[in-house]
Amino acid sequence: MPENIIDLRSDTVTKPTPEMRSAMANAEVGDDVYSEDPTINKLEARAAELFGREASIFVPTGSMGNQIALRLHTQPGREVVCESRAHVMDWEMGMAAMFSGCQLRTVAGQRGVLRWKDIEPALATSGLYYKAQTGLVWVENTHNMAGGTVTPLAVMRELRNGAHSRGLPIHLDGARVFNAATALKTDVATLTEGYDSVNFCLSKGLCAPVGSLLVGTAEFIREARMVRKALGGGMRQAGILAAAGLIALEEMPKRLHEDHATARLLAEALAKIEGITIDPADVETNIVIFTTAFDAPAYVAALKQNGVLASALSAHSVRLVTHRDVDQTACLRASAILANVAIEAHTAA
Amino acid sequence: MPENIIDLRSDTVTKPTPEMRSAMANAEVGDDVYSEDPTINKLEARAAELFGREASIFVPTGSMGNQIALRLHTQPGREVVCESRAHVMDWEMGMAAMFSGCQLRTVAGQRGVLRWKDIEPALATSGLYYKAQTGLVWVENTHNMAGGTVTPLAVMRELRNGAHSRGLPIHLDGARVFNAATALKTDVATLTEGYDSVNFCLSKGLCAPVGSLLVGTAEFIREARMVRKALGGGMRQAGILAAAGLIALEEMPKRLHEDHATARLLAEALAKIEGITIDPADVETNIVIFTTAFDAPAYVAALKQNGVLASALSAHSVRLVTHRDVDQTACLRASAILANVAIEAHTAA
Amino acid sequence: MPENIIDLRSDTVTKPTPEMRSAMANAEVGDDVYSEDPTINKLEARAAELFGREASIFVPTGSMGNQIALRLHTQPGREVVCESRAHVMDWEMGMAAMFSGCQLRTVAGQRGVLRWKDIEPALATSGLYYKAQTGLVWVENTHNMAGGTVTPLAVMRELRNGAHSRGLPIHLDGARVFNAATALKTDVATLTEGYDSVNFCLSKGLCAPVGSLLVGTAEFIREARMVRKALGGGMRQAGILAAAGLIALEEMPKRLHEDHATARLLAEALAKIEGITIDPADVETNIVIFTTAFDAPAYVAALKQNGVLASALSAHSVRLVTHRDVDQTACLRASAILANVAIEAHTAA
Amino acid sequence: MPENIIDLRSDTVTKPTPEMRSAMANAEVGDDVYSEDPTINKLEARAAELFGREASIFVPTGSMGNQIALRLHTQPGREVVCESRAHVMDWEMGMAAMFSGCQLRTVAGQRGVLRWKDIEPALATSGLYYKAQTGLVWVENTHNMAGGTVTPLAVMRELRNGAHSRGLPIHLDGARVFNAATALKTDVATLTEGYDSVNFCLSKGLCAPVGSLLVGTAEFIREARMVRKALGGGMRQAGILAAAGLIALEEMPKRLHEDHATARLLAEALAKIEGITIDPADVETNIVIFTTAFDAPAYVAALKQNGVLASALSAHSVRLVTHRDVDQTACLRASAILANVAIEAHTAA
Repeated sequence: MPENIIDLRSDTVTKPTPEMRSAMANAEVGDDVYSEDPTINKLEARAAELFGREASIFVPTGSMGNQIALRLHTQPGREVVCESRAHVMDWEMGMAAMFSGCQLRTVAGQRGVLRWKDIEPALATSGLYYKAQTGLVWVENTHNMAGGTVTPLAVMRELRNGAHSRGLPIHLDGARVFNAATALKTDVATLTEGYDSVNFCLSKGLCAPVGSLLVGTAEFIREARMVRKALGGGMRQAGILAAAGLIALEEMPKRLHEDHATARLLAEALAKIEGITIDPADVETNIVIFTTAFDAPAYVAALKQNGVLASALSAHSVRLVTHRDVDQTACLRASAILANVAIEAHTAA
Repeated sequence: MPENIIDLRSDTVTKPTPEMRSAMANAEVGDDVYSEDPTINKLEARAAELFGREASIFVPTGSMGNQIALRLHTQPGREVVCESRAHVMDWEMGMAAMFSGCQLRTVAGQRGVLRWKDIEPALATSGLYYKAQTGLVWVENTHNMAGGTVTPLAVMRELRNGAHSRGLPIHLDGARVFNAATALKTDVATLTEGYDSVNFCLSKGLCAPVGSLLVGTAEFIREARMVRKALGGGMRQAGILAAAGLIALEEMPKRLHEDHATARLLAEALAKIEGITIDPADVETNIVIFTTAFDAPAYVAALKQNGVLASALSAHSVRLVTHRDVDQTACLRASAILANVAIEAHTAA
Repeated sequence: MPENIIDLRSDTVTKPTPEMRSAMANAEVGDDVYSEDPTINKLEARAAELFGREASIFVPTGSMGNQIALRLHTQPGREVVCESRAHVMDWEMGMAAMFSGCQLRTVAGQRGVLRWKDIEPALATSGLYYKAQTGLVWVENTHNMAGGTVTPLAVMRELRNGAHSRGLPIHLDGARVFNAATALKTDVATLTEGYDSVNFCLSKGLCAPVGSLLVGTAEFIREARMVRKALGGGMRQAGILAAAGLIALEEMPKRLHEDHATARLLAEALAKIEGITIDPADVETNIVIFTTAFDAPAYVAALKQNGVLASALSAHSVRLVTHRDVDQTACLRASAILANVAIEAHTAA
Repeated sequence: MPENIIDLRSDTVTKPTPEMRSAMANAEVGDDVYSEDPTINKLEARAAELFGREASIFVPTGSMGNQIALRLHTQPGREVVCESRAHVMDWEMGMAAMFSGCQLRTVAGQRGVLRWKDIEPALATSGLYYKAQTGLVWVENTHNMAGGTVTPLAVMRELRNGAHSRGLPIHLDGARVFNAATALKTDVATLTEGYDSVNFCLSKGLCAPVGSLLVGTAEFIREARMVRKALGGGMRQAGILAAAGLIALEEMPKRLHEDHATARLLAEALAKIEGITIDPADVETNIVIFTTAFDAPAYVAALKQNGVLASALSAHSVRLVTHRDVDQTACLRASAILANVAIEAHTAA
């Protein structure tokens, strides 16, 4: 792909920064299966500290972190209540069922944001022996498929208190929790307080090449090491990756507001294009989802021809994601291409 | 419980008829694990014949029959598309996940009746490697939790053709498929034609004490024997149960119209009660679900005090099911009690 | 198959007695999913009482009872230590893995009888996070594939104490525990004292057509109802089967010594046959396993031609099982046939 | 840990070479979930080429590669026949059961080397419906827990032909297959010819920090991508790791003979120590396992005090593994320490 391509498919495409590359080349490493990799140990300690938790564990992907949490919080035959378009439902390969034997019971939130009154009717905690009982409540913040929407702090607490009042653990899929904290002008420790576990990604907006972290109690993370080993995530000299991860964790959250600004810039440009529907006010973080009057996959294909990569989510919806590798200039250029290509698409339709 | 209780909780409460008891006492039996029980063999052959299939297998419960089918039609990590209130979702203990490792993807039908256009957007058959692919389409006819609603013959065919056009197998949870066939004035072979498997119950409206049958191709049923053994359903002298099952299969379908008539009778009586909402035209078979302006669990408790057993489905809905052990006289008596108790409940509310 | 066939393949082939048939025809029944079947309730209470336990649950097969126990005592990823030819390893369809996600770690016992010193090296209880930990110890008494061998009372206690000293639960697959108690001249409550759960079968030497019981604490059995429902074992008017089961439980244990006598009789006759090796002293209960100098499957086929059914376990071993439907006269006749057919087989070899 | 520690616990402790660090710092990367990481693509193509296969897939660990293969070759409820001390049995956290629902049936080989006559009696391929059927044959070469023993080329073929003649796939856990090829003076393509899949590690003797590769047909690897994603192994800019992996793959196999020489050197020194039993001729590759007359864990603890790290496998056995980071000088020094500490241990015992 040419260098001047503007890749708005996902923030996962971010490449390691020069500082990260240098850190990886010079990382002090050891065998992490023996818990002897100093850079991994440092990263895990730092993540725990930032989230105000006892411990954390490095995992190769956010999917693995989420699935470890799901496996540990509940048991086969239990239900996990999540939002209807949650990543765990749509993009984790059915692993809740395949690995943990758990059924997902979905509830539709308002633009992906669940309230406790939405969740409550989906719970089964009576103990009735011939009804699968609920084992876990699952929250995703920001919510990817709903367009990077943010669950506010008060609602985060409402959900946590609700779950705990029913004796249920609550997990946060915080793949982009730093985006949420940035949008809410709070920190991740405050935002996720009391959640039984949180998973977040280094490899999305934070630009690390590989890796996520799962945070929780010391006992929970001790058990998580068993499950990570089982899943095949017990890497050896993983400090190479942790070296980049440390930079991602320390340096990158402070620039996420830039991605939110470019996303808003794109949204405002899109709002002016005929045949495209989007309310820029809905763009709270770095994800922009809009609907098209014309054929979305064809539009995405035409965009690619013109040097902009986007994702068609359905026949009439498209997702753009901003990140460090597409700055304001690139986004302005992308806006022009989005408009030009849309005119053709709309005229043809 | 006193003899004169009118039990409208479910058609599963039906007791074996005198003819069934006599048949069980005199059944010719053998060890069915060795496929040597002549009465089981006769029942399985007869069920296959009635459904126009190559083979069938006797299982202790409808849940086991359904779960065997689910396990065989697909594989771990695949999705099964079903109606949002399907029995397999709500009442089979999460076994789709726990035993088969499959995720249920639910779609809301019109009063439980799915159309192909509802199902299609929920399918994933592109082969995209990072998206769980659909493995099976699941239909329930009649639909229990939607109130015994019937999927018409044309729609049954539409769903079957849709699934097959996408290369997907389709299973029918026909726990009460004889009720559906009765309501549609057709036979089960016609109604279920082309479905890759059908499960139906002997122990509901057909009055047998125990048992269901899963029908399909000879090869499918051969594999079903392996899964039944695994699940612990490989009973020995099961001919005892099959003897009652044969009578259920031969004699009982022809009287199901009586249960539909009594259900309609109840519905019409309920429609006249203040504080109760139901459209009698919605009662297509032997299940009556109505909403209450007052507290449903309290109402059900009060009904029990007055000799009528019903099920509260939620805070404001109640289910009644008619069957052979509650005749027209009993239903008329139940109607009076339902009205009297409702007056008190409604006044109190 | 002709009436005069002598079926020594298994005690599972026993047919219900006339008293059982009568009891089934007249059984008081209810819907056991609602826990309202009085005959089931009576059987479960009686089984608990006989084993000196708080509760028990009726299941359609011994395999289901065993698998429920395995599921409940441990969790996915744990190991279950059992004898190398245990029924759970060889004849339960890999369900320890398929349903409970547990790995069986096998240990060879002396003629199927394990001692604690055999088990101990196979345990992993250190908590080392990258080693699968042991979750359960599993005992089978009598041991089927080792030839109905009996684990003595002192050894039963040694195993139980050993397991508990390591913080591990211990389950008894007591499919034929009444045979063991008979051979040891003790009762099942004494023999199984302190075992966390015991599964035993009504449908083998006890002659009931269908059914087993799992006994344990009230809490364990409460959870077992959830798993039984999941596995599809939640039958409705199961009192039909329980009626026969009650007779099996009360009347049949007292006649098992007869089966042991006929087994010994067969063994003594076999010991005199050229080409057959067996030590009659090894026959402790109702199972007779012997080795043949000639081809075992061919021998078994020839026996069938002569009216005796046996099981070839391998190229050179055969199993016979005695039971109520083959009395002393039948066994004497079988002995003669075994000898005659062996002469031909041995001569031919 | 001090710099001058001699770490003989495992070849997994090897640290990336300066060339690897440089390559990682300069790696061209992309998003591998979108199959756009050029360095990953290059590594996967090269691995396939070296093994004479159509395709390969990079995975974070050998455990993940093995478990993907196990999942794909068979289905839940099937048995996998492997050696009794295979890595998949002892060190993969019960994942054969937990993830794939498969039961491992173990067979003891001669010093870990299986022959077809050992495997054959453990197979079940008759189709008998109430017996779990075999789904896969599993070979480990070199065999870790048996002491790095090598299955010769002729035996590799014997096993492959045997499996295929029974219609069974065969997988090679070739975590150290380059060590085997080196010992046999052949190449990995020849050694593994016809195996349905092979997994090998970059992070052991080949010194890469992280990663393994699974090789097979194009279709098999296409499906492996689905399972890798499910397990949480779908890393993003994994080219960082692949850059080191390419050097490991190209450069490191040619130096493995050095590790074999140092292992032999250690074995010969150990053979002279009183209280230690080992036949140097048994040391075929880079793993040295010996038995001790004295307490092995105490010996290992004392060695650590003296700067040598080893692994106690049991109360009386110890494992040493040689690798690039312990050269001949280090091994000579280790030999002296092993002897000195043994004298004390043996005297004390």
